[in-house]
Amino acid sequence: MFTNTLYFDIPSTTKTEELWSKISVEYNSNAVGYYDLPIDGEKLLLDIGVWGAGLRNIRNVVIVGVGGSSLGAKAVYSMLFYEKKADAPKLYFLENIDPLGIKKTLQSIKLDESLFLIVSKSGTTLDTISIAKIIMVHFNIFPGDKAFGKYFAVITDNGSVLNKFANEYGLKSFFIPKNVGGRFSVLSAAGIVPLTLGGIDTVKLLEGAAACRNDFFECKLDTLIKKSLAYTVKVGQNINVLFSYSDIFRDFNAWFVQLWAESLGKKKGGERIGLTPVGLIGAIDQHSFLQLIMDGPKDKSVTFIRIENLTEDIIVPDISLKYIEKNNLKKGITAAELLNEQAIATMKSVINEGIITDEIVLSKADAYHAGYLIYYFELLTSLCGLLLEINTYNQPGVETGKKILLSKIGK
Amino acid sequence: MFTNTLYFDIPSTTKTEELWSKISVEYNSNAVGYYDLPIDGEKLLLDIGVWGAGLRNIRNVVIVGVGGSSLGAKAVYSMLFYEKKADAPKLYFLENIDPLGIKKTLQSIKLDESLFLIVSKSGTTLDTISIAKIIMVHFNIFPGDKAFGKYFAVITDNGSVLNKFANEYGLKSFFIPKNVGGRFSVLSAAGIVPLTLGGIDTVKLLEGAAACRNDFFECKLDTLIKKSLAYTVKVGQNINVLFSYSDIFRDFNAWFVQLWAESLGKKKGGERIGLTPVGLIGAIDQHSFLQLIMDGPKDKSVTFIRIENLTEDIIVPDISLKYIEKNNLKKGITAAELLNEQAIATMKSVINEGIITDEIVLSKADAYHAGYLIYYFELLTSLCGLLLEINTYNQPGVETGKKILLSKIGK
Repeated sequence: MFTNTLYFDIPSTTKTEELWSKISVEYNSNAVGYYDLPIDGEKLLLDIGVWGAGLRNIRNVVIVGVGGSSLGAKAVYSMLFYEKKADAPKLYFLENIDPLGIKKTLQSIKLDESLFLIVSKSGTTLDTISIAKIIMVHFNIFPGDKAFGKYFAVITDNGSVLNKFANEYGLKSFFIPKNVGGRFSVLSAAGIVPLTLGGIDTVKLLEGAAACRNDFFECKLDTLIKKSLAYTVKVGQNINVLFSYSDIFRDFNAWFVQLWAESLGKKKGGERIGLTPVGLIGAIDQHSFLQLIMDGPKDKSVTFIRIENLTEDIIVPDISLKYIEKNNLKKGITAAELLNEQAIATMKSVINEGIITDEIVLSKADAYHAGYLIYYFELLTSLCGLLLEINTYNQPGVETGKKILLSKIGK
Repeated sequence: MFTNTLYFDIPSTTKTEELWSKISVEYNSNAVGYYDLPIDGEKLLLDIGVWGAGLRNIRNVVIVGVGGSSLGAKAVYSMLFYEKKADAPKLYFLENIDPLGIKKTLQSIKLDESLFLIVSKSGTTLDTISIAKIIMVHFNIFPGDKAFGKYFAVITDNGSVLNKFANEYGLKSFFIPKNVGGRFSVLSAAGIVPLTLGGIDTVKLLEGAAACRNDFFECKLDTLIKKSLAYTVKVGQNINVLFSYSDIFRDFNAWFVQLWAESLGKKKGGERIGLTPVGLIGAIDQHSFLQLIMDGPKDKSVTFIRIENLTEDIIVPDISLKYIEKNNLKKGITAAELLNEQAIATMKSVINEGIITDEIVLSKADAYHAGYLIYYFELLTSLCGLLLEINTYNQPGVETGKKILLSKIGK
């Protein structure tokens, strides 16, 4: 069960019908491709299956990619870490051109047991290609070597320079559909290939996403419509906090931050538009950011996410420590219950302040619910983009820095 | 070398002198205790040394604490991970009442090789005490058992219920000074005890902090004064982004977020005041949040942090991959240089947009510079609090949730 309860009234508006109509147009157009990924997965899964059957015995899959090329797979992998097949290879993510992190990872794995997935939609991401070169030198394996194709594969656009490189040297290529942007690509090859190799039930992941797609486009559940209206209508209320209760959501938060910030921060003519994402982990950040939510400016909305039944649980022992009896809890309460009760109590205190608040409850953190959750936030992002009347799917602002960089250190 | 270069003009104001005077009053008063921690460490270090000499051979130190009781130690430990003594015990942090994370940690360590530090200033943090109880049951070791004091120690206020508990059962207590708040406590026992055990050069850490204290209060370097004025004077510009280039800053960012949000989000009479912190990691988040900074609302300041010389480095190999020649870099460039050049290029692109930007450069990420950096951000927080005319050191907003929780699950 996936439920999303809204604890706010939406501003009365005539925009609702218009928004349904706009999103339907986008959904039926060919310009935005992520909408259909949940039902397009069959061929991809088959392809992975056939290719995977021919692979050596591998223990490590190293994903070399950044932003949309890593965050989605990482989010799902962390969320389902306790659900994955026990004997599956371990996934590593090399996302940063930070020598400390790269060395640490490369020193902890052996070439024979490893597969490197170079993930870049354009095929020209500087950090990704540079890290790939470092890997080649570290393990002394180069394009043209007979075994090169055993150790490397690529995930990219069909026809990109990376795809051409792969073809030249006999590497397997998986393709991200051209009309699917990087940060919306987790349910394409960019996420599905590494996650399947890593022992995640990607069939169920896609099923969950398909269920969300159906609930929205077929059953016309309007919760997301209301949320997107609430987030975009009120001026000066432009920070959206995701308060996720469990350590397993840390990378999901990072995925959300990218999706939200890069999609919804845009110039519209001379105007600067944008919603600012903040990712928090409960209960930890009750001892951090919460104070600002409670007493600071009312420029924030808060979405609580919690899991009703965690895969594993522990009883909080009913023992009384002398002098600290104040902390004694009801007999039999578990850590997961305590975590959930903290989420509920904190949420009530936030609602009491009149802050725009809603609550997402997953009955279980499994592949199905992860898929639902991913697609749900993608939809919400698209809806907000339509309401803000911006291009949700490009990222023109990051090009200036790249140009300055290449002029200095490029050949 | 620690440098902080400001790339903005501050609004002309008469507040500068007033601010110097206010912070001097606070510094000389006895109400705020963190200012003197860098020069008060000698007795504490001696105490740790004597006590540590009598410890068994331990391989793991498990810090049980949340918020101010863990974030500071974790920030420094992560930043100096490649600098610590190689044979020192490993530090683990149990911060969340999440059963998945707790089980994973407890299953990976043995009692005989472990020491548990219960850290809570008040001594009554519910999650912390509950996790301590789970540890006791997991390892079957309880108060009153002869060996109990071998495995547990506490860090708390002198006279707190946790201190009384420790005295009753023969546990060592280290004290956080009463006038030092949790989020300003990393240079007190809360941070210094675990970090010293974890092989961090805490003498140098305190020296770095003392140098910052001296530069500010004795040499009257006014960079922080200017920054605090810029962050607080302009209405509607209330998001402060820390863009830290290197994976080693991830926990430092989390420490900053707590320090900033919990200190500067306050009600002043009926008014809601607050500055919102955002922590980013470069170069990764150039592919995420940067777009929003570049094209979104001008409600943000950005501070770039980078390290000139990383402990380890790798050459980006000067090899040309067919079809991807566009990514070829100048011969001999290293990963650390590429990381730094990315920071510089991104910073230039942000400055070009007219966004309030500054740059902190550490010549090296060692204990001295970590200490300087910590104290620097604490000072900046205090200055902003004075300018906003709020109580920087309390956190009244988080009590409501605690009350709701205890009414439901307390005994």
